[in-house]
Amino acid sequence: MSGTLRPHDGPPAVLFAPHAPRVSMRAAVEAGGGRVVTDPADAEALVWLAPRDPDGLGPTLAAGPAIRWVQLPFAGIDPFIGHLTTEHTWTSGKGVYAEPVAEMVLAMLLAQLRHLVGYARATRWSGPVGTNLHGAHVVVLGGGEITRALLPLLAPFHCRVTVVRRRDEPFAGADRTVGLDALVDVAADADAVVVAMALTERTRGAVDARVLAAMPDHALLVNVGRGAHVDTDALTAALAAGTIGGAALDVTDPEPLPEGHPLWSEPRCLITPHVGNTPEMGVPLLEARVRENVRRFATGGPLIGLVDVAAGY
Amino acid sequence: MSGTLRPHDGPPAVLFAPHAPRVSMRAAVEAGGGRVVTDPADAEALVWLAPRDPDGLGPTLAAGPAIRWVQLPFAGIDPFIGHLTTEHTWTSGKGVYAEPVAEMVLAMLLAQLRHLVGYARATRWSGPVGTNLHGAHVVVLGGGEITRALLPLLAPFHCRVTVVRRRDEPFAGADRTVGLDALVDVAADADAVVVAMALTERTRGAVDARVLAAMPDHALLVNVGRGAHVDTDALTAALAAGTIGGAALDVTDPEPLPEGHPLWSEPRCLITPHVGNTPEMGVPLLEARVRENVRRFATGGPLIGLVDVAAGY
Repeated sequence: MSGTLRPHDGPPAVLFAPHAPRVSMRAAVEAGGGRVVTDPADAEALVWLAPRDPDGLGPTLAAGPAIRWVQLPFAGIDPFIGHLTTEHTWTSGKGVYAEPVAEMVLAMLLAQLRHLVGYARATRWSGPVGTNLHGAHVVVLGGGEITRALLPLLAPFHCRVTVVRRRDEPFAGADRTVGLDALVDVAADADAVVVAMALTERTRGAVDARVLAAMPDHALLVNVGRGAHVDTDALTAALAAGTIGGAALDVTDPEPLPEGHPLWSEPRCLITPHVGNTPEMGVPLLEARVRENVRRFATGGPLIGLVDVAAGY
Repeated sequence: MSGTLRPHDGPPAVLFAPHAPRVSMRAAVEAGGGRVVTDPADAEALVWLAPRDPDGLGPTLAAGPAIRWVQLPFAGIDPFIGHLTTEHTWTSGKGVYAEPVAEMVLAMLLAQLRHLVGYARATRWSGPVGTNLHGAHVVVLGGGEITRALLPLLAPFHCRVTVVRRRDEPFAGADRTVGLDALVDVAADADAVVVAMALTERTRGAVDARVLAAMPDHALLVNVGRGAHVDTDALTAALAAGTIGGAALDVTDPEPLPEGHPLWSEPRCLITPHVGNTPEMGVPLLEARVRENVRRFATGGPLIGLVDVAAGY
């Protein structure tokens, strides 16, 4: 696996599967110096358009022996683990949607801190509730592009930011960076815990009953990662018992969250249907990424969003 | 009226009315170099603690002939217009609460743009809705401290900001500044209109049916100024007809908004009960301002938050 591919003679041939691309996506390939083909046998690159559906990927690759690079459409590629061959170069949408998702994190933090969720549900004037984000201690799980996009949004609020990541390498802009094994410790004085990491076997269930118990009773949980990062039953219990201050979940486990699930009627829980980026926001961003990666593929430049097959993200 | 008062011999005598101060407020006066007195006849300064109630102010001033300075507790002093004597120096809480209120504006903008109000009211998984704040055109009515505190919060979103103020003097950090008479023009391509100005005879009803009609059908109205800045009936009609995208009102007219008012059941309206700053947020901020103004009063420095009696704010 390598991010740098040999320069091409002529425009690289790009296949879209499992369905044809939009006109604007086709234009993005051409703007990047590529050409769209429809027969796998002609293809050198594949853009896979089904973000949660890896079925058909194997047969497509088998039918396209000249395919060397596969672009996946989402940042989270957990459904594709087990399908990542080592003879292809894989890129994901990592970083593509970071700005809208970071904006969603701030929206959710502020909505919960300023009690907007409760006020939105009220049908009459009520008393003052709310806390400032200004000066809060925000613990962010994940050292990726969402975190990179989030820190500038938090900067004017003079928050103290702790980044929790696989390794404790310093993260630019954070006040401190710790490894995932220190999560319980840093959660203990968090005003908010934000989950913004990739789902791997290492991070699955990271926000468990122990972490929730460590959080102060005013602290918020925000999840824009994957539902399976959080133990849903433990979270439901913590909210019901009031041992944490509230939750804002853009992803759930199970997802979609079934009708009648107790979190739908939990006063301190906001659930949004996986809209950290909506198609309306995301499609132009993905097209821009495809255009740039096709350009790099054509000229032998390093591709953006390379998947680390061994790490699984 | 002057912001600079003669230096005192000894600690200036500060009276609180119409009720006694909290322990922490008393400590703030002492930390500023003053002393708290309880007899108006002894007082050189008055801190008036009833933000919406000017009754009793006149008799208190009449009983305190040595009172030269009056500190009012809120930024908006519209209930006190008509009570502002020219023989006293008046200061308001202007700027004191700007940071929490600016934070509230951002919270409301993001909550409405990202459809969090709608999602908060949902009881099941639904489809993707939402727009980014990133790159939006935000029209801010008011060239005061809230606007000054808001612009740095908007900066990371690369918004285009138009400030509308009494005069069209440039406002630092805004892309352009226009006078109030240009409001209809600039509202016509706004993604959001934010009301953050003082209520005066000039600004009352500024957001009327004409302005609402000029706004694009996706545009949001956010009001953290005073309810009377907005024509409530015209707003209710615009929301019902869908000629604007939504509203977030921290202040209403009438206020409190009566139970059963159609805005309570309007899907695209968020109402919060005047909590741009809550007492929990605001009290420490006001105490810090009182401490600083007492220190300045004691040493003859210019007071902060001077009221322009003629302009009424």
